Amino acid sequence: TWLNAPAASELEQRVIRWIVEFIGYDPEANGVLVSGGSLSNFTALRVAIAQKCPYHYAQVGFDKNRALRIYASEQAHFCIERAIGSLGLGMENLVKIRVDKHFRIDLQHLREHIEMDLSEGRIPLAVVGNAGTVNTGAVDPINELSAVCKAYGLWLHLDAAYGGFAASIPKRREQEFAGMDLADSITIDLHKWLFVPFECGALLMKNPNHLRDTFRMVPEYQRFDHEDSKVDFSEWSMQQSRSFKALKVWMNFKAYGAEPLRQSIRSSLEWMQSLGKMIEASNDFELITPVSLSVVCFRYRSPENDLDLTALNRLNKAIVEDSEQDERVFIRETTIRGQTVLRACCTNFRREKKHLQYLLAVLREFGRRNLHRLGI
Amino acid sequence: TWLNAPAASELEQRVIRWIVEFIGYDPEANGVLVSGGSLSNFTALRVAIAQKCPYHYAQVGFDKNRALRIYASEQAHFCIERAIGSLGLGMENLVKIRVDKHFRIDLQHLREHIEMDLSEGRIPLAVVGNAGTVNTGAVDPINELSAVCKAYGLWLHLDAAYGGFAASIPKRREQEFAGMDLADSITIDLHKWLFVPFECGALLMKNPNHLRDTFRMVPEYQRFDHEDSKVDFSEWSMQQSRSFKALKVWMNFKAYGAEPLRQSIRSSLEWMQSLGKMIEASNDFELITPVSLSVVCFRYRSPENDLDLTALNRLNKAIVEDSEQDERVFIRETTIRGQTVLRACCTNFRREKKHLQYLLAVLREFGRRNLHRLGI
Repeated sequence: TWLNAPAASELEQRVIRWIVEFIGYDPEANGVLVSGGSLSNFTALRVAIAQKCPYHYAQVGFDKNRALRIYASEQAHFCIERAIGSLGLGMENLVKIRVDKHFRIDLQHLREHIEMDLSEGRIPLAVVGNAGTVNTGAVDPINELSAVCKAYGLWLHLDAAYGGFAASIPKRREQEFAGMDLADSITIDLHKWLFVPFECGALLMKNPNHLRDTFRMVPEYQRFDHEDSKVDFSEWSMQQSRSFKALKVWMNFKAYGAEPLRQSIRSSLEWMQSLGKMIEASNDFELITPVSLSVVCFRYRSPENDLDLTALNRLNKAIVEDSEQDERVFIRETTIRGQTVLRACCTNFRREKKHLQYLLAVLREFGRRNLHRLGI
Repeated sequence: TWLNAPAASELEQRVIRWIVEFIGYDPEANGVLVSGGSLSNFTALRVAIAQKCPYHYAQVGFDKNRALRIYASEQAHFCIERAIGSLGLGMENLVKIRVDKHFRIDLQHLREHIEMDLSEGRIPLAVVGNAGTVNTGAVDPINELSAVCKAYGLWLHLDAAYGGFAASIPKRREQEFAGMDLADSITIDLHKWLFVPFECGALLMKNPNHLRDTFRMVPEYQRFDHEDSKVDFSEWSMQQSRSFKALKVWMNFKAYGAEPLRQSIRSSLEWMQSLGKMIEASNDFELITPVSLSVVCFRYRSPENDLDLTALNRLNKAIVEDSEQDERVFIRETTIRGQTVLRACCTNFRREKKHLQYLLAVLREFGRRNLHRLGI
């Protein structure tokens, strides 16, 4: 509460305003710091239900006969499933929409599902858009999602946990992130692209009163009447006791300044574009998805032979395992449409071009070695 | 995950074992560190549903026709309501049970409610017992609660967020906390009576597999096959990214040792018993509830006149307001059966007897002043 920690409360309001301004969200927006993307997305959906559900969900519980439907692309983070499963909505009411070749949500498919649900008596409630999927970094078309939500009266939540801070680059804001300011709520993680230590996520809301309306419950031992200008953040999320997360964000902006932070994010984006080009220019790596934000999904293939999918998958899995043992580079695998791929994601301000060259050189070494070892 | 932070994962397992041992919970128990009591209680109820609900709640959602009932005393922390409201069960399925004169749950009333729900086709699911209510420090009769839960096949969750560490005192463990080892899950806050900084709560589980069974969802980019002995805490709660909370608990045990920590908790308990006696021995303060753990609820009254309830409530509210302005002592009010009372709670290892005498002296000063000022 403000009474217990006025400085922390004031500072949290300050850094939330900075974040909103930095990424160019609605200037009237406000929000709350939470542990990270998972809790932020959960909290956003809880608020969406409170605002859009035609019955009193908190009081009577979820009503299967008036099922609430949430839409997200099949590339949405799995924490959305975990949230739906814990909100008592039933994972069968999370409607996974297919994606286009750029791994962005298919708007036509989305509209069809909403229409079908309406005709079958279900209640379309919210769309979760991705602004930087974890797998490929894809950003859903936000303007178009917003138009769909407006047409059907749905809540638009943007999961920008990973990608959101790319919107601090004006060019990106006008391109991939166009329409972001129309979202009802945004998840964004400071402990990803703003370089602050774990845990530090934020939930931003176009209308911050919605947070208080949803979570306010004042216990008797804590009643305290004060001016409305004082924010009690314990009424803005599931948490009561809260750590002073705002301090590390405040320190970051104060120590480095907005422009250097923006510049380091810009560098990540540019380096990973370069990595994509280096891969395309090589004769033994291939790009698997278009480079989006700072995620590059690629794989090693033989410079000589045409390998089949099974062999390629074995080869690239072996490369990741080697890198785990070797410890010179840190790379993880993911699966894109049945293909085992190497996934590089850069949010580290210390990266330079030489690191990317080094990454490819080491992976090439593992690739060659495994071509022989696996007898491919 | 263990792969991302092996040291942090191993240390978290270590401190959870220490906590379990320190308070004397089931030696097979395990658990996870979370932000605090609110999230711990929410998580415990989510697991209870996964384990005890006869239908697949996560998949199909809450079914009003087969309502899940949760029982807790009317003194339970309001975060239980917030949890039920966010789990989609509907707050009308949180059954508030009345309390006895010691503010402990009324077992007869509890049994009657369970029988009634069964006869009406609802599904009794879990009991939330209090091991140190926030208002008065009351500890519900745990052995008896456990017997009721066993008889009806219910989950027993103990909200020991505030009070749990009092069980580290052997005498207390055998008295108020007898039967604690029978609970299916326990919420306990390290940032309360173990003196570590915010945020640091724990959820302890008799069968820790229940956590993984409930929350495990492995995204493709993070699949990693390793020995089962390695714990991925990201599969044990709602969170994915996690801070190194275990470190501050580890430091605490390492720097001070279990016995000094226990001794400081014992001191809090003893000082607050003394405060209770000082109040009873005075002619101008009166004790409103029996001293339980380290909570003392009392009020100031006139040493001369017999004041009515309205006057007493005004007087004690004015005392709290004065203390807020004055800043020499920090005291909060609560409401017990319509009476505005002063609530002192000690979990600070720096308290000594002189502080308690000082507290009463300052409150007496405010009391006398307000008797005049309010013209009572």
